Formats: sequence, structure tokens, C-alpha cells
Amino acid sequence: MLNDDEFIKTCDVPGPTKEEIRAILLYKSNVCHEDIVVDIGCGTGGLSVEFSLKAEKVYSIDKNPEAINICKKNLEKLGNLDKVSFIENDGVNALKNINTFDIALIGGSGRDLEPILDLVDSKLNHEGRILIPCILVDTKVDAVNKLKSLGYNPKIVEVNVSKGRVIDRGIMMIARNPIAIVYAKKR
Amino acid sequence: MLNDDEFIKTCDVPGPTKEEIRAILLYKSNVCHEDIVVDIGCGTGGLSVEFSLKAEKVYSIDKNPEAINICKKNLEKLGNLDKVSFIENDGVNALKNINTFDIALIGGSGRDLEPILDLVDSKLNHEGRILIPCILVDTKVDAVNKLKSLGYNPKIVEVNVSKGRVIDRGIMMIARNPIAIVYAKKR
Amino acid sequence: MLNDDEFIKTCDVPGPTKEEIRAILLYKSNVCHEDIVVDIGCGTGGLSVEFSLKAEKVYSIDKNPEAINICKKNLEKLGNLDKVSFIENDGVNALKNINTFDIALIGGSGRDLEPILDLVDSKLNHEGRILIPCILVDTKVDAVNKLKSLGYNPKIVEVNVSKGRVIDRGIMMIARNPIAIVYAKKR
Amino acid sequence: MLNDDEFIKTCDVPGPTKEEIRAILLYKSNVCHEDIVVDIGCGTGGLSVEFSLKAEKVYSIDKNPEAINICKKNLEKLGNLDKVSFIENDGVNALKNINTFDIALIGGSGRDLEPILDLVDSKLNHEGRILIPCILVDTKVDAVNKLKSLGYNPKIVEVNVSKGRVIDRGIMMIARNPIAIVYAKKR
Repeated sequence: MLNDDEFIKTCDVPGPTKEEIRAILLYKSNVCHEDIVVDIGCGTGGLSVEFSLKAEKVYSIDKNPEAINICKKNLEKLGNLDKVSFIENDGVNALKNINTFDIALIGGSGRDLEPILDLVDSKLNHEGRILIPCILVDTKVDAVNKLKSLGYNPKIVEVNVSKGRVIDRGIMMIARNPIAIVYAKKR
Repeated sequence: MLNDDEFIKTCDVPGPTKEEIRAILLYKSNVCHEDIVVDIGCGTGGLSVEFSLKAEKVYSIDKNPEAINICKKNLEKLGNLDKVSFIENDGVNALKNINTFDIALIGGSGRDLEPILDLVDSKLNHEGRILIPCILVDTKVDAVNKLKSLGYNPKIVEVNVSKGRVIDRGIMMIARNPIAIVYAKKR
Repeated sequence: MLNDDEFIKTCDVPGPTKEEIRAILLYKSNVCHEDIVVDIGCGTGGLSVEFSLKAEKVYSIDKNPEAINICKKNLEKLGNLDKVSFIENDGVNALKNINTFDIALIGGSGRDLEPILDLVDSKLNHEGRILIPCILVDTKVDAVNKLKSLGYNPKIVEVNVSKGRVIDRGIMMIARNPIAIVYAKKR
Repeated sequence: MLNDDEFIKTCDVPGPTKEEIRAILLYKSNVCHEDIVVDIGCGTGGLSVEFSLKAEKVYSIDKNPEAINICKKNLEKLGNLDKVSFIENDGVNALKNINTFDIALIGGSGRDLEPILDLVDSKLNHEGRILIPCILVDTKVDAVNKLKSLGYNPKIVEVNVSKGRVIDRGIMMIARNPIAIVYAKKR
């Protein structure tokens, strides 16, 4: 278990995906030690770190060189660097050069969610899983609609987390921004 | 309707109670123009301002002189100053010098929630209403238990609000800390 | 203040809009006694009842005759029937026969949200307000995008309410489904 | 990954702990294959099943014979029955007959949370973890206060989950009741 504040952070790179969301993504992904994972828009590397500890192989993809840099540092500190290949490119171009995989995490898609999902669908192994943590309301709708059009049966869960601050007079709850997770399995 | 950012604020005084919570408190209070209101722990004055616009009379109570000062400024700017009496004292001592009232708002009780509720109960008119916005988890439990022991039938509602930030790429939701409201009516 | 369970209900008509959401809509609408209100997709009549008690005039619109029927009954029981005109029609056709108004509530738009907003925009008075309670995620995105295209500066708030059930052993919180409110003001 | 609806259920036994909460508890527990786990108030067996798949040994404890029965059935169907011992007793009496353990899950404590935590503390191994999923508001406060008095540094997280229902016209979110998790580590 990793605390959010164990990750090295930098201003210009979003993330890491918060602890409870990482936990739910790990669980829903059913990741096992034979799985190949693509982490599209890896940012700070919250998910790349977690999946490097469970999977066979992770491709960490981000077009922002600063994200690749910080993601690498977090893998060194907290994950399993040996299992990770870094690709400094946007999702579409990065995916073109990867063969098949079992799990696609799409935390950042720029404005390319639809072509990314087309490519993911074409390279995802049978029984493969797609997981899309969504910060924007629009992404939820777009992801569900695109997955439906590709023949998936997408599910969606929204998670509002508050963390207690135990102060002298009692417990105060501090809210985290809501995150939705859209996910689907290939059949 | 008042926006949260219309209120004058200062670092050392909590509040104002957020817009949606003010809306729910106004609604649940059933405030009318004949009502006398006590606002215990008035802080920045979010509730004193709102109730001054609807009620006959508001007593704004806070032991922090800076709160009384900022509350007064907000009543000048946004409320109806003529209807408000300010009492710079803790809730227990302030209530001793007030006769009866119809609505008790308890936004800040220090560690005196129980004696405050004893006094409120003794001075609350028939059909009077008690509304306690709770930031601390402990306050919820204490308020419900004390109100039950005084013969009330307390209700509790918890409200998690997120506000959209419409950015270029879509809508991002920013969470506000959860607030609970414990309320009861005298019979 | 009206409790949700005071409304007459029937299986085939959605609503009423829940108490806390009604409270926030009333507050954000800034409704006054000179306002003319259209309630598009009035359903059970939760909003028609509330606004009939505050506004000059309410048009309650629903294409479902059963909704018009139950809405009328709730206005008789809880609201001010004299102020309400009922229009059994879809939103687009109903709006064509109404002159101007100050507040548009759009709780049900079928699949016509865009043409409804075009018509609302053309008939909304200066400083008029549009409020759209959204049950579907898609409606949030569509409403924000359409309002932006019409030159509005839409805001969005999402509200998660839980209600306490005070049982023997303590307080259990029962969640209500989340509701978003998209709203905008004409300038 | 187990879906909530894969569990065998019966009316008189609460649970299973919902999927997202199970995921967060698994993650926060840092469970490994050498850990001994006690599941106090195991109910339907949601947590016993999950931890039986990861830990060395699980003690599933419930004073309700129907809970023990249904928990056993779920372990047969979904978990690892060989790793589980069932104890039909209340938490206090059951714990007296167990030696030491690494993880204590306290999903049901009757009215005995304090004596249960005293016993848990006395038998928890160094670096052991206590996790308390709380349905009642009161349990959160009691758990935090008791853990503080025992010298722990308890943390608390509250989770509001909504699940999307993808209907013809869009995505509707259905709320689950909020659950808090109080947790602490022995040092």
C-alpha cells in the first residue's frame, strides 16, 4: 500500500491517481502476473507504479517529457522499474508501436479518446480490460458512448472520497474531487 | 441569492456557510417575517445575513470579536443590519440574556453543545426549530444524542457538493467538504 | 417547507424533485413575486408547487397526461393552484405558445434539450434564469455545451445527499441518487 | 475481482461489503500470504472470501449462526475454504480463544466495539493493521476515540459510491450508502 504523499510530484504533471482510486482500479482490473498493461497518459506514475508491482510488463505513455521523467523517478522509488517501458508520445502514436496487451488504463487522452479507444480495441487481447479514470464529466459520456459503439458493455462508477483530519476537537472530513471510472471487458 | 464570494472574509474567522447549505437551512427553517432567530457562532455572518433578510430579528452571537466585526460588515453590505443585535460572548452566556426565539442556528458551539442545547430548548417557542450545521463528525453524533435526550425527534442530512469548473476541454468537478445538518422541531 | 412524502405520487410519473434540490433551486432562482415561471417536464409537480408559492405565474408543462393530473392534485394540496396554467404538450410545442418569462426550469426535456433551450433563450426576459436539474450524466454535458453556444456562462453544481436514519444503535446514512444542477443567467 | 451479485445472500444477514469498499480494504490492509486475519462480524462473508484468497489464515467470526452458514457457502463458491476457521460467537468471546494475528477486520461489533478493540490491541502483532468499515456515524467516532486512547494514530476515509445505469437515453447514477473506513497500524 502506497500513500499519495510517497510519490514524487512536480507542478506541471497531474497526479498521482489517488490511493482509493488506485485500489479500485487494481481490483477491477483483475491484474495478474502474466498481464501486459498500457498506461496511457501516465502522468506522475501512480498507476504505472502499482501495475509494475503486479503485472508482467507496463508501457508508460505520455507526450509530456516531464511526466515521463517524474514517472520514471517514482518507479525507481516505489515500483518495479525493470518491468516498464517508457514511451514519450501521444496515445495514438504510442499505441501504433505496441503489439497486444491485456489491460489498458487511459488516464489522459488529450482530445483523442475516440481514436485511442479504436486502437485499444484492435490490440486488446480476448478477456482484456479497459479502465478509464475520468476527471472531466465529458470524458465519462464520451467513453461510455464510444465503448458502446465498439460493442462493449461499459460500466461506470463514481467515487467521492473524503479524508478525515483528526483534530483536537474531533474529526473533520476533507473532500477529494469526485472521480468516475468507466470500465469494460472484451468478449 | 448571494454568492459565497460576495461575502467579506478574514483569515481568522470561519465561514461563510456555503451557498447550498444556506439554501437548505433557509428552506428547512421555514423562516417567516415574524420569526426571532439566534445565530450561535455566527462567524463570517453567512447565516445572519440570510436570516436578516427574512426574519423579524436576528441575534448574532460569537465570542470572537473579529467574527462580530466581520459579521457586521457583511450585514452592512449584503443583509439588513437594522434587524440584527450583536452579542460578543460565548453561546451559553449570550443565550442567558435572550428571551424566547423561534429559530436557533448553531454553527459554532465551542465545546458547549450540550449546555447550549439545554438553554435553547428552554427558550425555544412552541413549533420552534433548531438547525445545527456540522463540520465535525463528532458534532453530528453529539447533537442527535442530546436532542433525543431532550425529547426531540432529530433528523440528519449530509450534503456533499461539487462545483463544476467549465474549462476549455470540459467540465471538471471540484468537491466541497461534506456538511451535515441536524435539525429538529419543538412540539 | 414541504417534506417529500407530503406529495401525492403515482408510479408512472417521476418525482417529486427532492427537498434539498428544491431548496437549492428556489435559492439559486432568486424567484420573486413578479416572476413568470415555466416548469418544463413538471412531472409530479415538486417544482410547480414550490414556485406557485413564490412567483406571479407558473406554466406547468408535461406531455404525459398522468403527470399533468398528479401535478394538479399536488398544487391543490400543497401549492397555489390559482397561479398555475397546465399545458399537456412537449416542451417545444408548449413554449411556442407562451410569451416571455423570467425563470425556466427544465426537469424533463425528452430528447429535445437543444431546441427547448433555443426557444427558452428567445423568450427569456433580461436577467432571466435557466435552471436544469439533471439526473442523467449526459444532460449535464449537453446543457453546458448548448448554453455556452448560446452565449451563456453556465455553472454546474452536483449534490449528493444522504439522509440519516436514527436507529436504536446509532445513525445510519441512506444515500439519495446524485443530482446535478446546471444554471445560467441572461445578460 | 468479484461482483457483489456473485455472493449468495440471505435476508437476515447483512452484506456483503460492497465491491469498492472491499477493494479499498484489501489495498489498505496490505495483506500478504503470511498474514493471519480475523474477520469480526463476518456476515455474508464478503471480506472473509477476499482475504482467504490472499492471506495465510482467516478466522470468520459471527454470533449469528445464519451468518456463519452463508459465509461458509460463499467461501465454498468464491473463496478458499481451506484457509478459514469459523467461530460462531460474539467478537469478545471469539477473540479470547485466538492467539495473535496481523489484520483485524471489524465489520460488526454489536455494542462491544471498545472491549473488542482492547482485545484486538492485545493480540495484534507488531505492524498489524486494524480496519473498521463503519455503517453507523457513531461507530466512526467511537472507533477513532478508542484507537486514540489505545495509542494508535487512526485515519478515516469516507467513500460515497454511485453506480451508473446505462439506459437508452444516457447514464443515470444510482447512489450506494456512504461507508467510512477507520484504520490504524500498530507500531
